Amino acid sequence: MKTTYKYMDFKRKLAAAWARNNSLLCVGLDPNIDKLPEHVRESKTPFFDFSKAIIDATADAVCAFKPNSAFYEARGADGITELNQTCDYIKTQHPDIPVILDFKRGDIDTTNSHYTTFAFDYLGVDAVTVQPYEGRKAFQPFLDRKDKGIIVLCRMSNKGSDEFQDMLVDGRKLYVHVAEHVRDEWNANGNCLLVVGATAPQELAEVRRLVGDDMPFLVPGFGAQGGDIEATVQAGITSDGNGLIINSSRSIIYASGGEDFAEAAQQAALQARDEINRYRKEQ
Amino acid sequence: MKTTYKYMDFKRKLAAAWARNNSLLCVGLDPNIDKLPEHVRESKTPFFDFSKAIIDATADAVCAFKPNSAFYEARGADGITELNQTCDYIKTQHPDIPVILDFKRGDIDTTNSHYTTFAFDYLGVDAVTVQPYEGRKAFQPFLDRKDKGIIVLCRMSNKGSDEFQDMLVDGRKLYVHVAEHVRDEWNANGNCLLVVGATAPQELAEVRRLVGDDMPFLVPGFGAQGGDIEATVQAGITSDGNGLIINSSRSIIYASGGEDFAEAAQQAALQARDEINRYRKEQ
Repeated sequence: MKTTYKYMDFKRKLAAAWARNNSLLCVGLDPNIDKLPEHVRESKTPFFDFSKAIIDATADAVCAFKPNSAFYEARGADGITELNQTCDYIKTQHPDIPVILDFKRGDIDTTNSHYTTFAFDYLGVDAVTVQPYEGRKAFQPFLDRKDKGIIVLCRMSNKGSDEFQDMLVDGRKLYVHVAEHVRDEWNANGNCLLVVGATAPQELAEVRRLVGDDMPFLVPGFGAQGGDIEATVQAGITSDGNGLIINSSRSIIYASGGEDFAEAAQQAALQARDEINRYRKEQ
Repeated sequence: MKTTYKYMDFKRKLAAAWARNNSLLCVGLDPNIDKLPEHVRESKTPFFDFSKAIIDATADAVCAFKPNSAFYEARGADGITELNQTCDYIKTQHPDIPVILDFKRGDIDTTNSHYTTFAFDYLGVDAVTVQPYEGRKAFQPFLDRKDKGIIVLCRMSNKGSDEFQDMLVDGRKLYVHVAEHVRDEWNANGNCLLVVGATAPQELAEVRRLVGDDMPFLVPGFGAQGGDIEATVQAGITSDGNGLIINSSRSIIYASGGEDFAEAAQQAALQARDEINRYRKEQ
């Protein structure tokens, strides 16, 4: 088990990072071997080297980092070692920035307890994303980790996400029921958040009305997926001007494919932060 | 990329294993460090050593092996190495037995393509379990792998799985819609299967009626979770006496916690196979 450099529960750590960096931006770490700059690709630890450079370049501009497990897993055991190095690096070098492991896991309760071991004990991250389909009881091993953020998929940003999420149950869409169940039944420890995509601002506003201001949203779909930042901020922001973790991955980390990738990522992150803040201040 | 010892698509490989071993039983490989026999726990590769012994002891009694990623992930990068060793071992020593990676992944399409790399190229497994919540378009990178089995969660076996799965959409439960969508929209390549739990035999029968005999079911919940084997077989079996991959994990692999664990697993597997076959023959 890792020693956390600075103990603080996820939601307080997030709130402190929002304030400290004046940023709602989350940089998604999605290292893809085919997209890495050539000089990084040749390293023995290309994903860690790449992640490390992005982290150092953008740490002052973000409220969180979000490594996506899928990308590291594609390199097998070596990738998992690099994911662990990446999480360690953030925790030791940038201990004020929370780490969200985007792994969207979901299984029965006894199995989920092993996923909590991977995320919270082995990697030592501050928060994770999880599926809703198995129901609250299955996720109790996650929810019991009071100091961690448990971010439940509600409304996704991808094309075709309406297939089941928009099905009508008692006249309201399935994702609305997911939001209400998380609010009323999953969130007994106050450690739940929701994933609500930037590609559907009206849904974002609806879910914000439903769950109130105490539940932050992780918002994917900004940047490469085409989400509109003004609409996103206006729809999801809370009365204190926070409440959002707006993720951008590709448009920041691959802003340049050359040797200047870290500087380009820094510029892209600062721009994204400032653009978000422009609409945030107008609330 | 691994060379497959003997090329055959998943559904044909499964059908051949059903026939060859006269078995619908799948042994789930869920290595839990706290439950391993003491002499195995002390190994440098405890999960591989344990899995290997279980595999050799039960290979003649099963139609598939199902390593669950969560358990291996709990040991981090070392666990992933051992998962890879385990998959390799089955493919080289027992090449006729299909390997189902139970990892229940789900993300947007570009991310899912990295999970396919992990499962099919790095580990080289024959089939995987996936979530339904993101919708068919998100899973296209999985569905495009025509030779692989894509096993979609439909009706789970865990307590509380009814929370969303039983919600009524147009008068029918959500899991029924999932089954129909998989039948009509996801299965263009004929490579889809469904997860339908043994703890709900009436639902199993309903889903079988809906999707017909061409779609095998992975059935968890038998054994430690309390599913009734007679009811399960009668509800889910196809007209040719097959169609089911009935998984048992804990009640087989932990049949003994001592040095005789492999022999005990063999006995438990043979018993489970025979019990299944008793009801199978009465159809």
